[in-house]
Amino acid sequence: MPARVAAMVQKVSEIVGTSTEGFARAAENAVKTAAKSVRNLRWFRVTELEGSIKDQKVLEYHATVKVYFDLES
Amino acid sequence: MPARVAAMVQKVSEIVGTSTEGFARAAENAVKTAAKSVRNLRWFRVTELEGSIKDQKVLEYHATVKVYFDLES
Amino acid sequence: MPARVAAMVQKVSEIVGTSTEGFARAAENAVKTAAKSVRNLRWFRVTELEGSIKDQKVLEYHATVKVYFDLES
Amino acid sequence: MPARVAAMVQKVSEIVGTSTEGFARAAENAVKTAAKSVRNLRWFRVTELEGSIKDQKVLEYHATVKVYFDLES
Amino acid sequence: MPARVAAMVQKVSEIVGTSTEGFARAAENAVKTAAKSVRNLRWFRVTELEGSIKDQKVLEYHATVKVYFDLES
Amino acid sequence: MPARVAAMVQKVSEIVGTSTEGFARAAENAVKTAAKSVRNLRWFRVTELEGSIKDQKVLEYHATVKVYFDLES
Amino acid sequence: MPARVAAMVQKVSEIVGTSTEGFARAAENAVKTAAKSVRNLRWFRVTELEGSIKDQKVLEYHATVKVYFDLES
Amino acid sequence: MPARVAAMVQKVSEIVGTSTEGFARAAENAVKTAAKSVRNLRWFRVTELEGSIKDQKVLEYHATVKVYFDLES
Amino acid sequence: MPARVAAMVQKVSEIVGTSTEGFARAAENAVKTAAKSVRNLRWFRVTELEGSIKDQKVLEYHATVKVYFDLES
Amino acid sequence: MPARVAAMVQKVSEIVGTSTEGFARAAENAVKTAAKSVRNLRWFRVTELEGSIKDQKVLEYHATVKVYFDLES
Amino acid sequence: MPARVAAMVQKVSEIVGTSTEGFARAAENAVKTAAKSVRNLRWFRVTELEGSIKDQKVLEYHATVKVYFDLES
Amino acid sequence: MPARVAAMVQKVSEIVGTSTEGFARAAENAVKTAAKSVRNLRWFRVTELEGSIKDQKVLEYHATVKVYFDLES
Repeated sequence: MPARVAAMVQKVSEIVGTSTEGFARAAENAVKTAAKSVRNLRWFRVTELEGSIKDQKVLEYHATVKVYFDLES
Repeated sequence: MPARVAAMVQKVSEIVGTSTEGFARAAENAVKTAAKSVRNLRWFRVTELEGSIKDQKVLEYHATVKVYFDLES
Repeated sequence: MPARVAAMVQKVSEIVGTSTEGFARAAENAVKTAAKSVRNLRWFRVTELEGSIKDQKVLEYHATVKVYFDLES
Repeated sequence: MPARVAAMVQKVSEIVGTSTEGFARAAENAVKTAAKSVRNLRWFRVTELEGSIKDQKVLEYHATVKVYFDLES
Repeated sequence: MPARVAAMVQKVSEIVGTSTEGFARAAENAVKTAAKSVRNLRWFRVTELEGSIKDQKVLEYHATVKVYFDLES
Repeated sequence: MPARVAAMVQKVSEIVGTSTEGFARAAENAVKTAAKSVRNLRWFRVTELEGSIKDQKVLEYHATVKVYFDLES
Repeated sequence: MPARVAAMVQKVSEIVGTSTEGFARAAENAVKTAAKSVRNLRWFRVTELEGSIKDQKVLEYHATVKVYFDLES
Repeated sequence: MPARVAAMVQKVSEIVGTSTEGFARAAENAVKTAAKSVRNLRWFRVTELEGSIKDQKVLEYHATVKVYFDLES
Repeated sequence: MPARVAAMVQKVSEIVGTSTEGFARAAENAVKTAAKSVRNLRWFRVTELEGSIKDQKVLEYHATVKVYFDLES
Repeated sequence: MPARVAAMVQKVSEIVGTSTEGFARAAENAVKTAAKSVRNLRWFRVTELEGSIKDQKVLEYHATVKVYFDLES
Repeated sequence: MPARVAAMVQKVSEIVGTSTEGFARAAENAVKTAAKSVRNLRWFRVTELEGSIKDQKVLEYHATVKVYFDLES
Repeated sequence: MPARVAAMVQKVSEIVGTSTEGFARAAENAVKTAAKSVRNLRWFRVTELEGSIKDQKVLEYHATVKVYFDLES
């Protein structure tokens, strides 16, 4: 299992991911997007779970996550 | 992607949905039930995730959600 | 559906479960482990959802749950 | 001891009960009033305890409770 | 100044009001809408302040409020 | 029922009351003590309920309350 | 009045007590049960007040409490 | 812009201000009243926004604020 | 009314806006500044309302807001 | 170890202490200042830890604490 | 830097540590005591910082921490 | 003592600092790292205190802080 922290200092970014399947996929999509712009991602924590509704049905699940990534020294 | 709000005023109802599969399905069941009695559902937010246990195994997942629906003017 | 409480007093334990599939499975794994050491488990409540990231991808989902079990009189 | 949940979906209503005796009676009065308009009440949770003061003495205790009731399918 | 509570039991409803002017007007609009369907409104408490943005400018302010109204005996 | 607010401005004080009987009496004792030093008490809200234990038994119940009183103009 | 802490280190356990009379008795029952398995109980703090409802009436009051006890060195 | 802190120690007081215009004026009235009895006010933080309703209309906005003032050495 | 979300992933930034007029203008100023550096702003949520005091009078209102903006794919 | 409570009623004051060394010294300074104006201090609880920054370095640590003191009967 | 999690399931225990020096030492003492009864400690999180006061001076700092330890499979 | 705010708008970044000495040094390290990439740092607020444990001893203290810095106009 990976370490939560591998550098002296980490930065935290808050991102909202979306998925039609469920909350874990929505969180995964948030992480995927974060991975495009920052390196050394280590951990995420869910801060909110929401969903949009259309025609009286759940359209998409949203997961707001805080992602933690190591700052390179 | 749909708008979160499409009317001047929204009402919020709190509902507990249940599923044997997982939290997203439990939330979806809460929305399905809400859809029977109110119109113009737009958004939901999870306020609690719980589960019942029987014979030492998870029996059902419960998602308490706040559903937001537009009030017609 | 089972009763949340079936004895006069319950104890609460906090456990972190892990899964590569999603949050519901992570919670289920926490309950499975609790079931090895205590009897009469009745209910759980999620207190935190997190995840570890490796090589810029979600490695595992973590669900911290409070499990409630009846104390035998 | 009764089940907390006996149907697939529950609704949650928030009600403020009042009593001159104490917080438990105030909560009980909230439940009594809820019982007049909805069926299948199962559970309540206290969200706030307050009190009004008159002539420098406690006049009434107030308990704000969320009541959970099963929706009939 | 009016009494916060004038009956033995109160009910609480959560409503989102909208305004282009500010948060107080948004709350006022939530109360105005509540006044159409329930009587004896006494008090409100803000639970969230939000806003929608269009073309990089604030379009509308949203105030989510809990409104308290007396139940007639 | 008395008004929660009867002046333009109120002050809030936090006080811990104690009782061997229960939480409502503990809150009442906090209000009684506040009444000795400030006038125009109107309302209280419970912020914490605790208790001391001696010889493995509850010795006293403690209620921390915020008391609201009108400032005279 | 007893000391809240009488040893260098304390442990915290979370327990749900039940009573048909009220919240203080429910908390007292939680403490009584804790007293059977751990020594040197010193303090408790209420973390949740709930109740079960049967036949539209409050059946039992539940108090979830954190109990603090000294660890012997 | 003024300093938030200009002394080694500050005290915090909680006050409820009222206004018929809006939340900012209500907070301002709380500060005005605090200014009559304490010196060296530096900062305030809103802890609650509420309102009273009369004849189905908002009568007054209430802002509960914590005011911070420097203690003179 | 605009959509809260119009892309698969959103980023959240926290910004403190200032105004001499009130909280809504302070939030608006935070949004205006965010609009200079990021595109596709959609929504904001207030996380804290504060104010600075000078010569015993409110000098400025501060609104800390989380702004949500769509990430372009 | 001293008792947390030695009188029937306690009052709570909120104070911000400052130190260039760390958070414990900042809390200690808050207690020292409280000791000048009230007697029978028993306990404190940290409610916020902050710090001021000057020339890109931490200048001072701030600890906001609630101090509990016995009211003499 | 060590991994936060190295097993599939972790248990969480809440412990109060004490020190005359400061909060970090108090947390360290909580961990030292936990280390006597459980193996594979990995992480701790502070949930409350308090202190006892005697003769108007801080006597001891208290840190309540949740300690996470791996359950052996 | 420096001003908390010296510009019309501030941005907030969340950073985790690490230290083997204690929580204040961990927060200081977070500020030091922030100082490398942004100018005009003014204030920080602690949002979480944690620690990693190795060989049953505290290895490092972690302080998650929100740092506030002025945006240049």
